[in-house]
Amino acid sequence: MATLADIGLAAAINILVAIAFLVAFAILRLQPINDRVYFPKWYLKGVRSSPTCSGAFVRKFVNLNLSSYLRFLGWMPAALRMPEPELINHAGLDSVVYLRIYLIGLKLFVPMAILAFAVLVPINWTNTDTLKNSEVEFSNIDKLSISNIPLSSQRFWAHLVMAYIFTSWTCYVLFKEYEIVASMRLHFLASEKRRPDQFTVLVRNVPPDPDESVSELVEHFFLVNHRDHYLTHQVVYNANKLSKLVKKKKQMQNWRDYYQLKYDKDPSKRPAVKTGFLGLCGEKVDAIDFYKSKIDELSKKATTEQEMIKKDPKSIMPAAFVSFRTRWGAAVCAQTQQTRNPTLWLTEWAPEPRDVYWQNLAIPFVSLTVRRLIIAVAFFVLTFFFMIPIAFVQSLANIEGIEKVVPFLKPVIEVGTIKSFIQGFLPGIALKIFLILLPTILMLMSKFEGFTSLSALERRSASKYYLFLLVNVFLGSIITGTAFQQLNRFIHQSANEIPRTIGVSIPQKATFFITYIMVDGWAGIAGEILRLKPLIIYHLKNFFLVKTEKDREEAMDPGSIDFASAEPKIQLYFLLGLVYAVVTPFLLPFIIIFFALAFVVFRHQIINVYNQEYESGAAFWPDVHCRIITALIISQLLLLGLLSTKHAVNSTPLLLVLPVLTIWFHRFCKSRFEPAFVKYPLQEAMMKDTLEHAREPNLDLRAYLLNAYVHPVFKDHEDHDSFTDDGEQECENVLVPTKRQSRKNTPVPSKYNGSSSPSLPDIAKEEL
Amino acid sequence: MATLADIGLAAAINILVAIAFLVAFAILRLQPINDRVYFPKWYLKGVRSSPTCSGAFVRKFVNLNLSSYLRFLGWMPAALRMPEPELINHAGLDSVVYLRIYLIGLKLFVPMAILAFAVLVPINWTNTDTLKNSEVEFSNIDKLSISNIPLSSQRFWAHLVMAYIFTSWTCYVLFKEYEIVASMRLHFLASEKRRPDQFTVLVRNVPPDPDESVSELVEHFFLVNHRDHYLTHQVVYNANKLSKLVKKKKQMQNWRDYYQLKYDKDPSKRPAVKTGFLGLCGEKVDAIDFYKSKIDELSKKATTEQEMIKKDPKSIMPAAFVSFRTRWGAAVCAQTQQTRNPTLWLTEWAPEPRDVYWQNLAIPFVSLTVRRLIIAVAFFVLTFFFMIPIAFVQSLANIEGIEKVVPFLKPVIEVGTIKSFIQGFLPGIALKIFLILLPTILMLMSKFEGFTSLSALERRSASKYYLFLLVNVFLGSIITGTAFQQLNRFIHQSANEIPRTIGVSIPQKATFFITYIMVDGWAGIAGEILRLKPLIIYHLKNFFLVKTEKDREEAMDPGSIDFASAEPKIQLYFLLGLVYAVVTPFLLPFIIIFFALAFVVFRHQIINVYNQEYESGAAFWPDVHCRIITALIISQLLLLGLLSTKHAVNSTPLLLVLPVLTIWFHRFCKSRFEPAFVKYPLQEAMMKDTLEHAREPNLDLRAYLLNAYVHPVFKDHEDHDSFTDDGEQECENVLVPTKRQSRKNTPVPSKYNGSSSPSLPDIAKEEL
Repeated sequence: MATLADIGLAAAINILVAIAFLVAFAILRLQPINDRVYFPKWYLKGVRSSPTCSGAFVRKFVNLNLSSYLRFLGWMPAALRMPEPELINHAGLDSVVYLRIYLIGLKLFVPMAILAFAVLVPINWTNTDTLKNSEVEFSNIDKLSISNIPLSSQRFWAHLVMAYIFTSWTCYVLFKEYEIVASMRLHFLASEKRRPDQFTVLVRNVPPDPDESVSELVEHFFLVNHRDHYLTHQVVYNANKLSKLVKKKKQMQNWRDYYQLKYDKDPSKRPAVKTGFLGLCGEKVDAIDFYKSKIDELSKKATTEQEMIKKDPKSIMPAAFVSFRTRWGAAVCAQTQQTRNPTLWLTEWAPEPRDVYWQNLAIPFVSLTVRRLIIAVAFFVLTFFFMIPIAFVQSLANIEGIEKVVPFLKPVIEVGTIKSFIQGFLPGIALKIFLILLPTILMLMSKFEGFTSLSALERRSASKYYLFLLVNVFLGSIITGTAFQQLNRFIHQSANEIPRTIGVSIPQKATFFITYIMVDGWAGIAGEILRLKPLIIYHLKNFFLVKTEKDREEAMDPGSIDFASAEPKIQLYFLLGLVYAVVTPFLLPFIIIFFALAFVVFRHQIINVYNQEYESGAAFWPDVHCRIITALIISQLLLLGLLSTKHAVNSTPLLLVLPVLTIWFHRFCKSRFEPAFVKYPLQEAMMKDTLEHAREPNLDLRAYLLNAYVHPVFKDHEDHDSFTDDGEQECENVLVPTKRQSRKNTPVPSKYNGSSSPSLPDIAKEEL
Repeated sequence: MATLADIGLAAAINILVAIAFLVAFAILRLQPINDRVYFPKWYLKGVRSSPTCSGAFVRKFVNLNLSSYLRFLGWMPAALRMPEPELINHAGLDSVVYLRIYLIGLKLFVPMAILAFAVLVPINWTNTDTLKNSEVEFSNIDKLSISNIPLSSQRFWAHLVMAYIFTSWTCYVLFKEYEIVASMRLHFLASEKRRPDQFTVLVRNVPPDPDESVSELVEHFFLVNHRDHYLTHQVVYNANKLSKLVKKKKQMQNWRDYYQLKYDKDPSKRPAVKTGFLGLCGEKVDAIDFYKSKIDELSKKATTEQEMIKKDPKSIMPAAFVSFRTRWGAAVCAQTQQTRNPTLWLTEWAPEPRDVYWQNLAIPFVSLTVRRLIIAVAFFVLTFFFMIPIAFVQSLANIEGIEKVVPFLKPVIEVGTIKSFIQGFLPGIALKIFLILLPTILMLMSKFEGFTSLSALERRSASKYYLFLLVNVFLGSIITGTAFQQLNRFIHQSANEIPRTIGVSIPQKATFFITYIMVDGWAGIAGEILRLKPLIIYHLKNFFLVKTEKDREEAMDPGSIDFASAEPKIQLYFLLGLVYAVVTPFLLPFIIIFFALAFVVFRHQIINVYNQEYESGAAFWPDVHCRIITALIISQLLLLGLLSTKHAVNSTPLLLVLPVLTIWFHRFCKSRFEPAFVKYPLQEAMMKDTLEHAREPNLDLRAYLLNAYVHPVFKDHEDHDSFTDDGEQECENVLVPTKRQSRKNTPVPSKYNGSSSPSLPDIAKEEL
């Protein structure tokens, strides 16, 4: 068992690692050459242009201004300075609400830690008549924890009261946060500019009709049943083939640009290229002409394909985006049932155009339910039996196996150090690869389930990942053994034995989890801000692949926050904090440091780096709330089990009240706040409609909505051929800036050019 | 253990009892004096008039036509003859769908029984190498059951396959029935005449406003947010005091009528009455004048009270019935969220006026959730700990206790036979009283939970009663001991032990349940048709209390089917049938006889006796479906436990598939059909609106809806003062006939006067 000194040493090492990362970040971010890695958001916004354009050659790559190095933690206050409303404008509501998860961590655990250190730690520490149990050794940490209290002591009353206080505090914080987030969401939706999805409903499972096309059917149906409100609609095409063609054309255009650039720089020699495999063999031809002809050919193909898609009734999927004259009409249609058969004409609020997952729009209802069943079973198997195939792979991937397959490597492998390295490394590698691939696997499973928007897919994957972590990391660490062994044990144990079994081992695992928090939490967050992987990849791409300015922009692409895997990991810390708050309060400061560090780092990243792919308006909050409640209930049940092994039997009925109240609290919150995340209130819709009508009585909404929900590939295809019409441009402009859009048209948002607010880019540039 | 002969004897006795009941019924129903007990529905419909009016004096009371006695089972085919659509017209959809529950029982168990007797019984019977277990004795019935198969026999495969076949068959039947009932409901709703609830939405939790009254607030809100659709509204008054006054006035009117009648018959002597306690003492006054003055006084009081209610803003509850111009508008409002705060302006489909439970309309949202929590805890305690107070009462209610309280009874009690009778009788009486009161207690609990319609209250009580029966009758009979002891045992047993514990004792309890089916099922149903209690009460009332024709009608009141306690009892038979179908198929014929008898009897009762208080359009079907699914899953788990004790371990994974598939099937059905019972599709609403608009373009809907949702007490009050206006009369006419309405206006429905269909009343009259 680890002593306080051991923990101190581990903490020191991890703090050093974290500081090293932060210093490295502070140095690297000041180098102009890395500017696009650490401030891509500002590039995408169009506020910042390449610092490599001016100054001496060396200064293009290295920052020689030494004074700027002195303020190497300067980014921290800067990250905290931007006020929340401006941040919503800058990065969208999703990111801001995501940050609030870390904030909740602080709000929960700082008062808890203070209280626990003021009350519980003295109570645990001052206990003198320790029951010296020969089986369990006591370390210093155990002297601070509940383990130090002997069986059936009266001191357990303190822990009991604390459990009540902590539960009430958690519920209070959760309630307040839910209230704030819900009103933020409603305010965000209310203050949004006109957006196509406000007027649009996604209709699925349009029934087949022998006499009418899908488009006619949709039009007739809504003309009849939403007579006064229906405006227009857009059918959904199956455009996977066209997608491929357009993608290929893009590549070709890139190559042409590259050679054109080359030729412009050195007009003496026209670049040539070989037509064969990878440009290595075959006939040599003029590169610019070659790619031009290729592009023309693909353009024609794509145009034919596009026309074919639009003509062929088979390529029209039984789904449509139906737009209404008013937001009220759309809100009504999205919330009501259309026909007698509730599996036909399914209507739901349309995701914003960027958020649509086009491939899943055509899945029929019965298939959907079957898919859900298959994935539920598959996920269960994955969670509890994933060790079986991995163990199998591990048994194959040994030295003898490799020697059999690639005998010529034998002499190398047989070298002592290499052999031992492989032997130590191989067994873990299959598991490591699996864990790295896991979020992707879960996302594929969610896609198979048939959700129609990227945001829903991410939320679903996050739920799955959370369950996986709960079973395999939390329970797996406490009760050693694979998940399957646990399952087997749980089935063979009685219902009141299970919390006991876990409860007993909880205090013993405190030191393990403290180390886990430091290694996975602290160092992980410090690594997050360093962005080592994107840094390396950007420079590699920049050196080898980037041919044109467009390529550089693509190489710079910072991506979104990975909600599907990041959020479940945060939840693990909530679980640890709540479980150990009463049992071993010594763990709380480590969690607080994690949340504080993570909050600052992610605030910085959201301001400077990440560029969200879509905006769901914090639709994920009910999930976050629900998972913290789950953690709370788990902590209560484990405390119950632990205290019952401590013979504090009187506490059982008192502790049983807690989960009941917590579940009731959850249901109350659900009915009180969840509708704000699912439905769109008619009053709000009517208010916006009235306001808009007063402001712009002559608005041509039909033109505005005309191309909003066209499959992106049609737009791409037309974009490159410069066929875009104004209606489409206009409608995209109003969205929160995206990759595609900001790349297409880079007008600088007025707000960030004006000097009214001292926004980050100025600060960041000052430092250069 | 009972042998086949024992069961045969018990069956014979019970069959004799049932036949005795049926014969008694056949004789009693032919007596004219009982006509109002056995055919009240026809009186209420106005098709049948008292047979006591004509013929000789004796023939008024006794039927002397001997030939009619010969056809003493003639009511059975007559009961089956009325076709379903006509039955819907006659008794409403609720009753018809209620009958379908019995029909499902037949559809499920007849094929199951045939298959089980063709396959399982021979397999069980022909097994020769019986493992002679010394602990368990084998009876003949056990030779037919799964008990006859030795451990780890290959013959269990047959039971496994049967479990699959039975599950598939059950799911198939349930799916088909759900489909039929859903379409019946939608067809019923679509073919209904114009009804106020089609245009009306119940709005609750209207927020308080210092500047406006509730009525103004509602009007403004809906004028803004449902501009094109809002028509009118009706606020809800707190009229409990007025209710009491009106009730008292009614009594007085009754007395006046009685004395008036007396005076008319014998004009020589004006009737007199004493004004004191119960008319036994006090001053003697002229009865007619006395009651007239009393009535006038109460009338004035009621009128003042009514005006006060309408003036005092405190007596207006924050709820309203809001009516719309179109069904479409109402459907939209009922299905959407109105404001940002989902706990304000709650809208739901208005129950039909008769179905409203007025007292609960004003409960605020937070109070509702607290009430749910309280009732959930209370119900848990009631289910598992109800034996504790009863045991306490039993310990008090012994001979010594009685002798202490009423010492003068001592000599009587001490007589040998009386003493032993009391000793045998007393311990059971507390339990018996509790069980009789249970449905009432559960209904009170449901009322406390705050549901706003009678139909919802009945559904909720039925759910509670089902759980109570499941725990205390089914599990309580299998594992002897109180529910609390079971709970304790289950907590201390491992999850896979529980189905085993129950599974093992399942085959041993078969004979007990067969007896239970015969006593509770067969005899109970035969007793139902005899209507012994209503018969006695009617004659007692008729003899002692009935003063006027109105009183006689009230004494005749047949009531509704008691869904809240009858449906859960049927579910118990489904559970028994599904559990024993594989284990002891010998039980199935008994259940089939129950279902067949019950179907015929209840069809007869629905045609001739019961008069539903409200019409919910079979809104209870999702509950029925869900409970049969629960029974199916319980049966699968118990079979799993049973087979695992039989060492047929290979079967476990195969059997585990069944509950997973069943749960999936349930979810599929839920999403496929349940919306039909909760929401009203816009297409249907639009269709009815369009049709109506074409037929009656000049309909004055506002006048039609004016008084539809006025608190019934205002109507009652006005009725008796003959203040009723035409709007109200008209709107009540369109409902399915009710007690109040049919009493008020008794025009004979044209359908039952025409000779087009040979309906029951003709047949019933022929027999007289």
